[in-house]
Amino acid sequence: MKPLPPGSTIGILGGGQLARMLSLAAANLGLKCHIFAPEKDCPAFQVSAAQTIAAYDDENALSEFANGVDAVTYEFENVPAATVEFLEKLTIVRPGSKALAVAQDRIAEKSLARELGAMTAAFAPVLTLADLESAVVATGLPAILKTTRMGYDGKGQAKINTAADLASAFAAMKGQPAILESFVRFKSEFSVVCARAADGGFAAFDIAENVHRNHILYTSTVPAKIDEELGAEAIYVARRIAEMLDYVGVMGVEFFLGDGVIYVNEIAPRVHNSGHWTMNACLVSQFEQHIRAVAGWPLGATTRHSDVVMTNLLGDEADAWAALASEDGTAIHLYGKAESRPGRKMGHINRITPRQG
Amino acid sequence: MKPLPPGSTIGILGGGQLARMLSLAAANLGLKCHIFAPEKDCPAFQVSAAQTIAAYDDENALSEFANGVDAVTYEFENVPAATVEFLEKLTIVRPGSKALAVAQDRIAEKSLARELGAMTAAFAPVLTLADLESAVVATGLPAILKTTRMGYDGKGQAKINTAADLASAFAAMKGQPAILESFVRFKSEFSVVCARAADGGFAAFDIAENVHRNHILYTSTVPAKIDEELGAEAIYVARRIAEMLDYVGVMGVEFFLGDGVIYVNEIAPRVHNSGHWTMNACLVSQFEQHIRAVAGWPLGATTRHSDVVMTNLLGDEADAWAALASEDGTAIHLYGKAESRPGRKMGHINRITPRQG
Repeated sequence: MKPLPPGSTIGILGGGQLARMLSLAAANLGLKCHIFAPEKDCPAFQVSAAQTIAAYDDENALSEFANGVDAVTYEFENVPAATVEFLEKLTIVRPGSKALAVAQDRIAEKSLARELGAMTAAFAPVLTLADLESAVVATGLPAILKTTRMGYDGKGQAKINTAADLASAFAAMKGQPAILESFVRFKSEFSVVCARAADGGFAAFDIAENVHRNHILYTSTVPAKIDEELGAEAIYVARRIAEMLDYVGVMGVEFFLGDGVIYVNEIAPRVHNSGHWTMNACLVSQFEQHIRAVAGWPLGATTRHSDVVMTNLLGDEADAWAALASEDGTAIHLYGKAESRPGRKMGHINRITPRQG
Repeated sequence: MKPLPPGSTIGILGGGQLARMLSLAAANLGLKCHIFAPEKDCPAFQVSAAQTIAAYDDENALSEFANGVDAVTYEFENVPAATVEFLEKLTIVRPGSKALAVAQDRIAEKSLARELGAMTAAFAPVLTLADLESAVVATGLPAILKTTRMGYDGKGQAKINTAADLASAFAAMKGQPAILESFVRFKSEFSVVCARAADGGFAAFDIAENVHRNHILYTSTVPAKIDEELGAEAIYVARRIAEMLDYVGVMGVEFFLGDGVIYVNEIAPRVHNSGHWTMNACLVSQFEQHIRAVAGWPLGATTRHSDVVMTNLLGDEADAWAALASEDGTAIHLYGKAESRPGRKMGHINRITPRQG
C-alpha cells in the first residue's frame, strides 16, 4: 500500500481516551479520523471529523464505516475478533486479526513468548476446578488465576495464596476459560512500547519503568532503572513478537524484571498507557507513531529529548487540574470524560526534566 | 471569573489552522471547542466538538453560539469589531474589543507603541493623494503604503520607490484609508509571542528570529540572534502593550532589529505564526497558553527544552510530506486544507535540536 496522503481518513474502533489521543495525533499529520463506538458521548467524538454510534456486530454500520475510511485501527484489544475479521474483507485493518487473536488470549500470548525463547511466568490452562487443583502443583503458590480473555486493569483476576482459595478463585472466573499463572517475584515492572511498519521497519521508544496501584498503572518513569543488556533483550523480544504477528502499528509489551532475568507479562496490540510519556518527551508520540504505521507513513524517530515521569489521574485525582496547571514542567492531558468514577482513567500528566543521559 | 473547569466549551471565531491548533490544544486540557465560521469545510471543523456555519453579522447565530459556550476567542484580527462587541454583551470574549480595535488599525497600533516610548517606522495617515504627496516628505523614500485595516501577509500594501509610484500606489488602496510607513532598514526581523492572564500575569516565550519571503513568514528560528538587552526591551514593550490593552490571551508583536535599536512593526491580537515553534520546543505551546488565558487557567511556563527552526509549508511545499516524515528531529503539522494554492499556508514543520544554551 502507498502511504495514505494527507486528507485521508483513519477509522478507529473504540472512542475512549486512546482513540481521542490517536485522533489528535492524526490531525497533526493532516489526517481525519472516523470513530466507531457503541457508546454515546465518547471522549474521541469531541476531536474527530466523523462518528458512528453502533454495535460492533452491526454489519450494515460496519460496511458503511469501511466504505468511508481509508484504513482501520482499534484502540483496545477487546474489540470482537469477528468485527476485525469482517472489516478486513472490506478495507485495510492494522494491526490485523492475527495480532488481535493472540493478544486476546493469555494462553496464546504466553505461548508465543515461550516459542521465541522468552521467559514468562509458569502457567497452565484451567477449565475445571480439577484443572486448577493440578495447575497449582505446576505453578506453586501464590499464583494468580485470570480469565484467558477480556481482562484489563486487574479485572477478571483472583489471587490464590493457599489451597483454601481455590474454590472461590475458580468461582470468580464465572465459568470462563482461565489461566493459572505463577506469581513472579519481580523487582520492578517495565514495558517496551514499539512500532512496526508495513515494510517491516521497527522502532522502539525508550523503556519505561512502571508502578501499578490496585492493578492499574500509576506511573511510568523514563529512563527506567534497568541493566542495558536486559533492556536490549526486552526490545529484541518485542521486535520478534511483532515480526511473528506480522504486526503493523504500535504495540506495548509489559515485562517483569527479576534477578538478572526478564519475563514477558502481557502483549497489548495497541498504543499503551505506559507510552503516554512520549507525548511530551519525544517529537513523535506513540499516538503519531501508530497513525504513521497504520497510514503507511515512515516511522518517526523515537529520540527522547527529556527525562519524564507520567502519572495517571484516576477518578477524583483529576480534580487537582488547577494545581497541576500551575506546576512548571508539567503537561496536562485530560480525556473529556463527563463522569468521574473511582479508578477511572480521567487523564494523565507528564512531568519532564532536562535529559540527564 | 473562576477558571473554566474541564468539560467547558470555548467558542472560537474563525475556522482556519489557528483555530484548529487551538482546538487540539484545548482538547489536551479536557476543554471542548465550538467553531463559528462562515465557510464550509474549515480545517478546525475536523477536530472540534461543535461547529456553526454562519456569517459574522448573523445575530441569531451569534446569540445561539454565545449561549452554547463558556467563553469566546478569535483566531484572527480581521473578525468584524461589531461581531466581538455583540458577543461581549452575551459572554466573556478574550482578548476583548479594545485590543481588537487597536490591532485592526495600523495607525492606532503604531500610535500605541509610540505612546509607550517604543520606536516604530515613521508614519503618516493617507486619505487622499495630496496626503500621500505630503506624507512622503515626512517618511522619505522608499516607503510603504498600506491600508490601515484588514491587511495580512502583504495584502493591501504597495511599495513606493520614487515619486513616480505615488499615483499607482494610491490607486492600489482602492479608496481605503491608508498609512504611509518609512522603509526601516533592518538587520533582521523578530517577534515576541507572549501571554497575559486575566489576573495580570504575564509570560513571554523566547524571542523568534523571522525570515519572510514574498511578505509571508518563511522561517522562525529560536534562539534568535539578538543582543540580550534589546531582547529584554522587546519583551518589556510587548508586556506594556498587553497591559495598555487590558489584554487577555496570547499576543504576537513583530519587531525590526536595526543598528542597536528595535522598532515595533505589528501587533497581532492572537496566536501567531512565529509562535508555532512552541508546539515542539516547549511543554506548553502558544495554543495551549492562549486557551489557558481564555479559560482563566494559570499561564504555563514558557521554558524551551530544545532549539528549533519552524518552516512554513506554502502551497505545494506541503507535497513533500513523505520526505519530511522521514527526517529525524522534524515534527510535521498539516492543516487539513483540501485545496492547495500558491502561497497558501498548508502546514509547517518544526526541526528541533538539543538546546545549546
